[in-house]
Amino acid sequence: MTHVHVVGFGMGPHHLTGEAVAALAATDYVLAVRKGERDELLDVRRRICAAHGVELVEVADPERDRDDPADYPGAVKAWHHARVEAFANVLEQRRGTAGFLVWGDPSLYDSTLRIIDQLAARIDLTWDVVPGISAPQLLAARHRIVLHEVGQPVHVTTARRLPEALDAGERNVLVMLASEASLTTLDALPDWRIWWGANLGTDGEELVAGSVGGVLPEIRAARDRARDRAGWVMDAYLLRAPSEKS
Amino acid sequence: MTHVHVVGFGMGPHHLTGEAVAALAATDYVLAVRKGERDELLDVRRRICAAHGVELVEVADPERDRDDPADYPGAVKAWHHARVEAFANVLEQRRGTAGFLVWGDPSLYDSTLRIIDQLAARIDLTWDVVPGISAPQLLAARHRIVLHEVGQPVHVTTARRLPEALDAGERNVLVMLASEASLTTLDALPDWRIWWGANLGTDGEELVAGSVGGVLPEIRAARDRARDRAGWVMDAYLLRAPSEKS
Repeated sequence: MTHVHVVGFGMGPHHLTGEAVAALAATDYVLAVRKGERDELLDVRRRICAAHGVELVEVADPERDRDDPADYPGAVKAWHHARVEAFANVLEQRRGTAGFLVWGDPSLYDSTLRIIDQLAARIDLTWDVVPGISAPQLLAARHRIVLHEVGQPVHVTTARRLPEALDAGERNVLVMLASEASLTTLDALPDWRIWWGANLGTDGEELVAGSVGGVLPEIRAARDRARDRAGWVMDAYLLRAPSEKS
Repeated sequence: MTHVHVVGFGMGPHHLTGEAVAALAATDYVLAVRKGERDELLDVRRRICAAHGVELVEVADPERDRDDPADYPGAVKAWHHARVEAFANVLEQRRGTAGFLVWGDPSLYDSTLRIIDQLAARIDLTWDVVPGISAPQLLAARHRIVLHEVGQPVHVTTARRLPEALDAGERNVLVMLASEASLTTLDALPDWRIWWGANLGTDGEELVAGSVGGVLPEIRAARDRARDRAGWVMDAYLLRAPSEKS
Protein backbone atom coordinates (compact mmCIF):
# COMPACT_ATOMS: atom_id res chain seq x y z
CA MET A 1 0.00 0.00 0.00
CA THR A 2 1.16 3.52 -0.79
CA HIS A 3 0.23 6.56 1.26
CA VAL A 4 0.77 10.18 0.26
CA HIS A 5 0.96 13.30 2.44
CA VAL A 6 0.12 16.44 0.47
CA VAL A 7 1.81 19.15 2.55
CA GLY A 8 1.39 22.90 2.09
CA PHE A 9 4.59 24.73 3.01
CA GLY A 10 3.29 28.27 2.74
CA MET A 11 5.62 30.91 1.32
CA GLY A 12 8.74 29.17 2.63
CA PRO A 13 10.25 26.78 5.20
CA HIS A 14 9.43 29.17 8.08
CA HIS A 15 5.73 28.66 7.31
CA LEU A 16 5.75 24.91 7.96
CA THR A 17 3.29 24.10 10.75
CA GLY A 18 3.97 21.61 13.53
CA GLU A 19 1.52 19.29 11.77
CA ALA A 20 3.48 19.62 8.50
CA VAL A 21 6.77 18.86 10.28
CA ALA A 22 5.19 15.74 11.83
CA ALA A 23 3.92 14.65 8.40
CA LEU A 24 7.42 15.06 6.93
CA ALA A 25 8.90 13.03 9.79
CA ALA A 26 6.54 10.22 8.76
CA THR A 27 7.43 10.51 5.06
CA ASP A 28 9.89 8.15 3.33
CA TYR A 29 10.51 10.37 0.30
CA VAL A 30 9.19 13.54 -1.30
CA LEU A 31 8.36 13.68 -5.00
CA ALA A 32 8.98 16.83 -7.05
CA VAL A 33 9.40 17.81 -10.68
CA ARG A 34 12.62 19.35 -11.91
CA LYS A 35 11.87 21.98 -14.52
CA GLY A 36 15.22 23.23 -15.76
CA GLU A 37 18.52 24.74 -14.77
CA ARG A 38 17.08 27.39 -12.48
CA ASP A 39 14.09 26.23 -10.46
CA GLU A 40 13.60 28.14 -7.21
CA LEU A 41 10.53 26.17 -6.20
CA LEU A 42 12.60 22.99 -6.44
CA ASP A 43 15.37 24.66 -4.43
CA VAL A 44 12.90 25.40 -1.61
CA ARG A 45 11.80 21.76 -1.62
CA ARG A 46 15.46 20.66 -1.49
CA ARG A 47 16.05 22.90 1.52
CA ILE A 48 12.94 21.64 3.33
CA CYS A 49 13.81 17.99 2.68
CA ALA A 50 17.41 18.50 3.81
CA ALA A 51 16.29 20.29 6.99
CA HIS A 52 13.82 17.50 7.85
CA GLY A 53 15.96 14.55 6.75
CA VAL A 54 13.66 13.37 3.98
CA GLU A 55 14.91 12.06 0.65
CA LEU A 56 13.87 14.15 -2.36
CA VAL A 57 13.10 12.16 -5.51
CA GLU A 58 13.33 14.51 -8.48
CA VAL A 59 11.35 13.62 -11.58
CA ALA A 60 12.35 15.38 -14.80
CA ASP A 61 9.43 17.42 -16.09
CA PRO A 62 8.16 15.73 -19.26
CA GLU A 63 8.85 17.54 -22.52
CA ARG A 64 5.92 19.64 -23.64
CA ASP A 65 5.18 19.61 -27.35
CA ARG A 66 5.28 23.25 -28.43
CA ASP A 67 5.51 22.48 -32.15
CA ASP A 68 1.80 22.51 -32.84
CA PRO A 69 0.34 25.69 -31.29
CA ALA A 70 -2.99 24.83 -32.93
CA ASP A 71 -3.40 21.94 -30.49
CA TYR A 72 -2.51 23.78 -27.26
CA PRO A 73 -5.13 22.00 -25.05
CA GLY A 74 -4.04 18.64 -26.43
CA ALA A 75 -0.37 19.38 -25.73
CA VAL A 76 -1.11 20.48 -22.16
CA LYS A 77 -3.23 17.38 -21.55
CA ALA A 78 -0.51 15.09 -22.87
CA TRP A 79 2.06 16.89 -20.72
CA HIS A 80 -0.09 16.53 -17.57
CA HIS A 81 -0.66 12.86 -18.39
CA ALA A 82 3.09 12.27 -18.82
CA ARG A 83 3.73 13.94 -15.46
CA VAL A 84 1.19 11.69 -13.72
CA GLU A 85 2.82 8.65 -15.40
CA ALA A 86 6.25 9.71 -14.16
CA PHE A 87 5.00 10.06 -10.56
CA ALA A 88 3.05 6.79 -10.79
CA ASN A 89 6.20 4.94 -11.87
CA VAL A 90 8.13 6.10 -8.81
CA LEU A 91 5.22 5.41 -6.42
CA GLU A 92 4.71 1.90 -7.81
CA GLN A 93 8.40 1.13 -7.49
CA ARG A 94 9.02 2.67 -4.07
CA ARG A 95 5.62 2.42 -2.33
CA GLY A 96 5.69 3.35 1.40
CA THR A 97 4.81 6.91 2.42
CA ALA A 98 5.47 9.61 -0.13
CA GLY A 99 5.08 13.37 0.17
CA PHE A 100 4.23 16.22 -2.17
CA LEU A 101 5.29 19.69 -1.01
CA VAL A 102 2.88 22.37 -2.18
CA TRP A 103 3.77 26.06 -2.35
CA GLY A 104 1.10 27.99 -0.43
CA ASP A 105 -1.98 25.92 0.37
CA PRO A 106 -3.22 22.92 -1.62
CA SER A 107 -6.79 24.33 -1.61
CA LEU A 108 -6.11 27.47 -3.71
CA TYR A 109 -5.04 27.55 -7.37
CA ASP A 110 -2.80 24.51 -7.13
CA SER A 111 -2.93 21.37 -9.29
CA THR A 112 -1.44 18.82 -6.87
CA LEU A 113 -4.78 17.46 -5.61
CA ARG A 114 -5.93 16.99 -9.21
CA ILE A 115 -2.72 15.05 -9.93
CA ILE A 116 -3.33 12.90 -6.83
CA ASP A 117 -6.88 12.15 -8.03
CA GLN A 118 -5.42 10.98 -11.34
CA LEU A 119 -2.76 8.90 -9.56
CA ALA A 120 -5.42 7.32 -7.34
CA ALA A 121 -7.39 6.30 -10.42
CA ARG A 122 -4.28 4.52 -11.72
CA ILE A 123 -2.60 2.96 -8.66
CA ASP A 124 -3.60 1.79 -5.17
CA LEU A 125 -3.27 4.91 -3.02
CA THR A 126 -4.45 6.59 0.16
CA TRP A 127 -3.70 10.23 0.95
CA ASP A 128 -4.26 13.13 3.31
CA VAL A 129 -3.75 16.89 3.10
CA VAL A 130 -1.90 19.22 5.49
CA PRO A 131 -2.84 22.90 4.98
CA GLY A 132 -0.26 25.68 4.53
CA ILE A 133 -0.22 29.47 4.63
CA SER A 134 -1.55 30.86 1.33
CA ALA A 135 -0.36 33.94 -0.58
CA PRO A 136 -3.50 35.99 0.27
CA GLN A 137 -2.84 35.39 3.96
CA LEU A 138 0.75 36.60 3.74
CA LEU A 139 -0.40 39.57 1.66
CA ALA A 140 -2.90 40.48 4.40
CA ALA A 141 -0.33 39.93 7.17
CA ARG A 142 2.25 42.16 5.47
CA HIS A 143 -0.30 44.95 4.98
CA ARG A 144 -1.76 44.20 8.45
CA ILE A 145 -5.29 44.13 7.09
CA VAL A 146 -8.41 41.98 7.27
CA LEU A 147 -9.37 40.82 3.75
CA HIS A 148 -12.90 42.24 3.98
CA GLU A 149 -14.83 44.98 5.75
CA VAL A 150 -16.74 44.00 8.91
CA GLY A 151 -19.10 41.12 8.08
CA GLN A 152 -18.62 41.64 4.32
CA PRO A 153 -17.56 39.08 1.69
CA VAL A 154 -14.25 38.69 -0.15
CA HIS A 155 -14.36 37.39 -3.70
CA VAL A 156 -11.25 35.36 -4.58
CA THR A 157 -10.51 35.03 -8.29
CA THR A 158 -7.81 34.98 -10.93
CA ALA A 159 -6.49 38.01 -12.83
CA ARG A 160 -7.97 36.54 -16.00
CA ARG A 161 -11.45 36.57 -14.45
CA LEU A 162 -11.16 39.95 -12.72
CA PRO A 163 -13.11 41.80 -15.46
CA GLU A 164 -16.12 39.50 -15.09
CA ALA A 165 -16.00 39.83 -11.29
CA LEU A 166 -16.12 43.62 -11.68
CA ASP A 167 -18.94 43.35 -14.23
CA ALA A 168 -20.87 41.22 -11.72
CA GLY A 169 -20.57 44.02 -9.17
CA GLU A 170 -17.95 42.56 -6.82
CA ARG A 171 -16.57 45.34 -4.63
CA ASN A 172 -13.91 43.52 -2.60
CA VAL A 173 -11.81 41.21 -4.74
CA LEU A 174 -8.69 39.20 -3.96
CA VAL A 175 -6.83 38.63 -7.23
CA MET A 176 -4.43 35.74 -7.61
CA LEU A 177 -2.24 34.65 -10.53
CA ALA A 178 -1.93 38.33 -11.39
CA SER A 179 -0.30 39.41 -14.62
CA GLU A 180 0.85 42.47 -16.50
CA ALA A 181 -2.45 42.36 -18.42
CA SER A 182 -4.53 42.43 -15.24
CA LEU A 183 -2.92 45.73 -14.26
CA THR A 184 -4.46 47.29 -17.36
CA THR A 185 -7.89 46.41 -15.95
CA LEU A 186 -7.05 48.61 -12.97
CA ASP A 187 -6.73 51.74 -15.11
CA ALA A 188 -10.51 52.01 -14.98
CA LEU A 189 -10.61 51.94 -11.15
CA PRO A 190 -8.58 54.98 -9.99
CA ASP A 191 -10.71 55.52 -6.85
CA TRP A 192 -10.47 51.94 -5.62
CA ARG A 193 -8.00 50.96 -2.95
CA ILE A 194 -5.37 48.30 -3.60
CA TRP A 195 -3.07 46.27 -1.36
CA TRP A 196 -0.53 44.62 -3.65
CA GLY A 197 2.40 42.25 -3.14
CA ALA A 198 4.85 40.36 -5.33
CA ASN A 199 7.21 37.46 -4.61
CA LEU A 200 5.83 37.35 -1.08
CA GLY A 201 8.04 35.69 1.49
CA THR A 202 11.19 35.96 -0.66
CA ASP A 203 14.13 38.37 -0.30
CA GLY A 204 12.79 40.30 -3.29
CA GLU A 205 9.30 40.78 -1.80
CA GLU A 206 7.59 43.98 -2.94
CA LEU A 207 4.58 45.67 -1.27
CA VAL A 208 2.53 48.67 -2.36
CA ALA A 209 -0.76 50.02 -0.99
CA GLY A 210 -2.90 53.05 -1.72
CA SER A 211 -5.50 54.33 -4.14
CA VAL A 212 -5.21 52.56 -7.49
CA GLY A 213 -4.83 55.83 -9.39
CA GLY A 214 -2.11 56.99 -7.00
CA VAL A 215 0.04 53.86 -6.82
CA LEU A 216 -0.36 52.06 -10.15
CA PRO A 217 2.93 53.44 -11.57
CA GLU A 218 4.67 52.40 -8.34
CA ILE A 219 3.19 48.89 -8.65
CA ARG A 220 4.40 48.55 -12.24
CA ALA A 221 7.91 49.60 -11.19
CA ALA A 222 7.91 47.25 -8.18
CA ARG A 223 6.67 44.41 -10.38
CA ASP A 224 9.56 44.94 -12.81
CA ARG A 225 12.03 45.17 -9.91
CA ALA A 226 10.76 41.86 -8.47
CA ARG A 227 11.08 40.15 -11.86
CA ASP A 228 14.54 41.58 -12.51
CA ARG A 229 15.74 40.37 -9.15
CA ALA A 230 14.25 36.86 -9.08
CA GLY A 231 13.89 36.08 -12.78
CA TRP A 232 10.15 35.54 -12.16
CA VAL A 233 7.29 37.43 -10.58
CA MET A 234 4.17 36.18 -8.78
CA ASP A 235 1.84 38.82 -7.49
CA ALA A 236 -1.50 39.02 -5.71
CA TYR A 237 -3.63 41.91 -4.58
CA LEU A 238 -6.76 42.96 -2.79
CA LEU A 239 -8.99 45.50 -4.55
CA ARG A 240 -11.71 47.40 -2.69
CA ALA A 241 -14.31 49.76 -4.10
CA PRO A 242 -14.61 53.23 -2.57
CA SER A 243 -16.97 53.35 0.38
CA GLU A 244 -20.55 54.17 -0.58
CA LYS A 245 -20.83 56.39 2.47
CA SER A 246 -18.20 58.88 1.35
CA MET B 1 8.07 51.63 23.13
CA THR B 2 5.63 48.77 22.94
CA HIS B 3 5.58 46.20 20.16
CA VAL B 4 2.81 43.68 19.47
CA HIS B 5 2.95 40.40 17.56
CA VAL B 6 -0.49 39.38 16.27
CA VAL B 7 -0.08 35.63 15.79
CA GLY B 8 -2.55 33.32 14.05
CA PHE B 9 -2.47 29.86 15.63
CA GLY B 10 -4.75 28.10 13.16
CA MET B 11 -7.16 25.51 14.53
CA GLY B 12 -4.82 24.53 17.38
CA PRO B 13 -1.24 24.37 18.69
CA HIS B 14 -0.21 21.87 15.96
CA HIS B 15 -0.93 24.59 13.38
CA LEU B 16 1.66 27.04 14.72
CA THR B 17 4.20 27.80 11.99
CA GLY B 18 7.93 28.10 12.57
CA GLU B 19 7.50 31.84 12.13
CA ALA B 20 4.79 31.90 14.82
CA VAL B 21 6.99 29.91 17.23
CA ALA B 22 9.83 32.41 16.64
CA ALA B 23 7.46 35.32 17.29
CA LEU B 24 6.33 33.72 20.57
CA ALA B 25 9.95 33.21 21.60
CA ALA B 26 10.42 36.98 21.18
CA THR B 27 7.25 37.82 23.14
CA ASP B 28 7.33 38.92 26.79
CA TYR B 29 3.65 38.22 27.50
CA VAL B 30 0.47 37.28 25.68
CA LEU B 31 -2.77 39.19 26.27
CA ALA B 32 -6.12 37.41 26.23
CA VAL B 33 -9.65 37.97 27.49
CA ARG B 34 -11.22 35.60 30.00
CA LYS B 35 -14.91 35.18 29.23
CA GLY B 36 -16.30 32.95 31.95
CA GLU B 37 -16.00 29.63 33.68
CA ARG B 38 -15.70 27.54 30.55
CA ASP B 39 -13.63 29.19 27.83
CA GLU B 40 -12.02 26.71 25.44
CA LEU B 41 -10.39 29.40 23.34
CA LEU B 42 -8.64 30.68 26.46
CA ASP B 43 -7.63 27.12 27.36
CA VAL B 44 -5.92 26.76 23.96
CA ARG B 45 -4.04 30.01 24.55
CA ARG B 46 -3.00 28.77 28.00
CA ARG B 47 -1.66 25.56 26.47
CA ILE B 48 0.25 27.43 23.76
CA CYS B 49 1.79 29.89 26.23
CA ALA B 50 2.78 27.07 28.60
CA ALA B 51 4.35 25.08 25.76
CA HIS B 52 6.37 28.08 24.56
CA GLY B 53 7.28 29.53 27.95
CA VAL B 54 5.38 32.79 27.55
CA GLU B 55 3.44 34.45 30.34
CA LEU B 56 -0.31 34.75 29.70
CA VAL B 57 -1.92 37.93 31.02
CA GLU B 58 -5.66 37.34 31.33
CA VAL B 59 -7.94 40.35 31.18
CA ALA B 60 -11.49 39.86 32.45
CA ASP B 61 -13.96 40.48 29.64
CA PRO B 62 -15.79 43.73 30.43
CA GLU B 63 -19.44 43.40 31.42
CA ARG B 64 -21.77 43.90 28.50
CA ASP B 65 -24.93 45.85 29.23
CA ARG B 66 -27.78 43.57 28.17
CA ASP B 67 -30.50 45.54 30.00
CA ASP B 68 -31.41 47.82 27.14
CA PRO B 69 -31.93 45.66 24.03
CA ALA B 70 -33.14 48.76 22.19
CA ASP B 71 -29.59 50.10 22.20
CA TYR B 72 -27.80 46.93 21.01
CA PRO B 73 -25.21 48.75 18.80
CA GLY B 74 -24.45 51.19 21.61
CA ALA B 75 -23.96 48.36 24.11
CA VAL B 76 -21.62 46.48 21.77
CA LYS B 77 -19.64 49.65 21.07
CA ALA B 78 -19.24 50.38 24.78
CA TRP B 79 -18.20 46.78 25.39
CA HIS B 80 -15.57 46.91 22.61
CA HIS B 81 -14.32 50.22 23.96
CA ALA B 82 -14.00 48.81 27.49
CA ARG B 83 -12.06 45.85 26.11
CA VAL B 84 -9.61 48.15 24.31
CA GLU B 85 -9.21 50.17 27.52
CA ALA B 86 -8.42 47.00 29.49
CA PHE B 87 -5.74 45.94 26.99
CA ALA B 88 -4.32 49.49 26.82
CA ASN B 89 -3.92 49.57 30.61
CA VAL B 90 -1.82 46.40 30.60
CA LEU B 91 0.27 47.50 27.60
CA GLU B 92 0.99 50.92 29.13
CA GLN B 93 1.99 49.34 32.42
CA ARG B 94 4.07 46.45 31.05
CA ARG B 95 5.35 47.79 27.69
CA GLY B 96 7.96 45.52 25.99
CA THR B 97 6.78 42.97 23.40
CA ALA B 98 3.24 41.70 23.78
CA GLY B 99 1.40 39.05 21.78
CA PHE B 100 -2.19 38.40 20.74
CA LEU B 101 -3.03 34.83 19.78
CA VAL B 102 -5.68 34.66 17.07
CA TRP B 103 -7.76 31.56 16.33
CA GLY B 104 -7.44 30.81 12.60
CA ASP B 105 -5.94 33.66 10.61
CA PRO B 106 -6.07 37.36 11.56
CA SER B 107 -7.17 38.26 8.00
CA LEU B 108 -10.57 36.48 8.01
CA TYR B 109 -13.57 37.38 10.20
CA ASP B 110 -11.49 38.25 13.25
CA SER B 111 -11.59 41.52 15.22
CA THR B 112 -8.05 41.55 16.64
CA LEU B 113 -6.57 43.85 13.98
CA ARG B 114 -9.42 46.32 14.53
CA ILE B 115 -8.66 46.26 18.26
CA ILE B 116 -4.96 46.87 17.52
CA ASP B 117 -5.87 49.86 15.31
CA GLN B 118 -7.85 51.28 18.23
CA LEU B 119 -4.99 50.60 20.64
CA ALA B 120 -2.51 52.28 18.28
CA ALA B 121 -4.71 55.40 18.18
CA ARG B 122 -4.54 55.52 21.97
CA ILE B 123 -0.98 54.48 22.91
CA ASP B 124 2.46 54.42 21.28
CA LEU B 125 2.58 51.08 19.50
CA THR B 126 4.20 49.18 16.64
CA TRP B 127 2.95 45.78 15.47
CA ASP B 128 3.27 42.99 12.95
CA VAL B 129 1.10 40.07 11.88
CA VAL B 130 1.99 36.37 11.60
CA PRO B 131 -0.53 34.43 9.48
CA GLY B 132 -2.17 31.18 10.63
CA ILE B 133 -4.17 28.35 9.06
CA SER B 134 -7.79 29.42 8.58
CA ALA B 135 -10.95 27.32 8.98
CA PRO B 136 -11.64 27.18 5.20
CA GLN B 137 -8.18 25.73 4.65
CA LEU B 138 -8.69 22.99 7.22
CA LEU B 139 -12.16 22.31 5.79
CA ALA B 140 -10.59 21.89 2.33
CA ALA B 141 -7.74 19.74 3.69
CA ARG B 142 -10.13 17.40 5.52
CA HIS B 143 -12.29 16.96 2.43
CA ARG B 144 -9.13 16.87 0.26
CA ILE B 145 -10.55 19.41 -2.17
CA VAL B 146 -9.53 22.59 -3.92
CA LEU B 147 -11.92 25.41 -2.96
CA HIS B 148 -12.82 26.22 -6.59
CA GLU B 149 -13.01 24.54 -9.97
CA VAL B 150 -10.03 24.99 -12.31
CA GLY B 151 -9.37 28.71 -12.77
CA GLN B 152 -12.74 29.62 -11.22
CA PRO B 153 -13.45 31.99 -8.30
CA VAL B 154 -14.47 31.24 -4.73
CA HIS B 155 -16.72 33.72 -2.98
CA VAL B 156 -16.08 33.88 0.78
CA THR B 157 -18.91 35.25 2.86
CA THR B 158 -20.84 34.92 6.10
CA ALA B 159 -23.93 32.79 6.64
CA ARG B 160 -25.93 35.98 7.15
CA ARG B 161 -24.97 37.21 3.68
CA LEU B 162 -25.35 33.87 1.90
CA PRO B 163 -28.82 34.71 0.49
CA GLU B 164 -27.53 37.88 -1.18
CA ALA B 165 -24.53 35.99 -2.61
CA LEU B 166 -26.94 33.45 -4.14
CA ASP B 167 -29.17 36.24 -5.44
CA ALA B 168 -26.11 37.81 -7.09
CA GLY B 169 -25.47 34.55 -8.94
CA GLU B 170 -22.48 33.21 -6.99
CA ARG B 171 -22.03 29.51 -7.80
CA ASN B 172 -19.11 28.55 -5.55
CA VAL B 173 -19.43 29.98 -2.06
CA LEU B 174 -17.40 29.43 1.09
CA VAL B 175 -19.65 30.19 4.06
CA MET B 176 -18.16 31.16 7.40
CA LEU B 177 -19.80 31.96 10.74
CA ALA B 178 -22.49 29.47 9.78
CA SER B 179 -25.62 29.13 11.85
CA GLU B 180 -28.74 27.04 12.23
CA ALA B 181 -30.59 29.71 10.24
CA SER B 182 -28.18 29.50 7.30
CA LEU B 183 -29.00 25.80 6.92
CA THR B 184 -32.59 26.79 6.12
CA THR B 185 -31.24 28.71 3.12
CA LEU B 186 -29.88 25.40 1.82
CA ASP B 187 -33.35 23.83 1.57
CA ALA B 188 -33.74 25.67 -1.75
CA LEU B 189 -30.52 24.18 -3.20
CA PRO B 190 -31.02 20.38 -3.19
CA ASP B 191 -28.89 19.83 -6.33
CA TRP B 192 -25.88 21.81 -5.10
CA ARG B 193 -22.88 20.05 -3.60
CA ILE B 194 -21.73 20.82 -0.07
CA TRP B 195 -18.55 20.14 1.88
CA TRP B 196 -19.34 20.91 5.51
CA GLY B 197 -17.35 20.84 8.74
CA ALA B 198 -17.91 21.80 12.37
CA ASN B 199 -15.52 22.32 15.29
CA LEU B 200 -12.64 21.69 12.89
CA GLY B 201 -9.39 20.62 14.50
CA THR B 202 -11.03 19.62 17.79
CA ASP B 203 -11.78 16.12 19.11
CA GLY B 204 -15.44 16.69 18.28
CA GLU B 205 -14.79 17.59 14.64
CA GLU B 206 -17.64 16.66 12.28
CA LEU B 207 -17.44 16.38 8.48
CA VAL B 208 -20.19 15.75 5.92
CA ALA B 209 -20.07 15.99 2.11
CA GLY B 210 -22.53 15.25 -0.66
CA SER B 211 -25.49 16.73 -2.48
CA VAL B 212 -27.29 19.25 -0.29
CA GLY B 213 -30.61 17.46 -0.65
CA GLY B 214 -29.02 14.15 0.29
CA VAL B 215 -26.95 15.17 3.30
CA LEU B 216 -28.79 18.08 4.93
CA PRO B 217 -30.43 15.88 7.61
CA GLU B 218 -27.00 14.35 8.32
CA ILE B 219 -25.47 17.83 8.66
CA ARG B 220 -28.17 18.91 11.12
CA ALA B 221 -27.54 15.79 13.22
CA ALA B 222 -23.75 16.26 13.10
CA ARG B 223 -24.14 19.92 14.05
CA ASP B 224 -26.21 18.96 17.12
CA ARG B 225 -23.68 16.26 18.02
CA ALA B 226 -20.78 18.77 17.82
CA ARG B 227 -22.67 21.25 20.03
CA ASP B 228 -23.66 18.59 22.56
CA ARG B 229 -20.08 17.43 22.83
CA ALA B 230 -18.26 20.77 23.05
CA GLY B 231 -20.96 23.08 24.39
CA TRP B 232 -20.50 25.25 21.28
CA VAL B 233 -20.47 24.78 17.53
CA MET B 234 -18.57 26.64 14.80
CA ASP B 235 -19.16 25.43 11.28
CA ALA B 236 -18.09 26.38 7.78
CA TYR B 237 -18.92 24.95 4.39
CA LEU B 238 -18.29 25.15 0.69
CA LEU B 239 -21.36 25.24 -1.57
CA ARG B 240 -21.07 24.56 -5.31
CA ALA B 241 -23.79 24.86 -7.95
CA PRO B 242 -24.44 21.85 -10.19
CA SER B 243 -22.26 21.83 -13.29
CA GLU B 244 -23.86 23.57 -16.25
CA LYS B 245 -22.53 20.86 -18.55
CA SER B 246 -24.59 18.08 -17.00
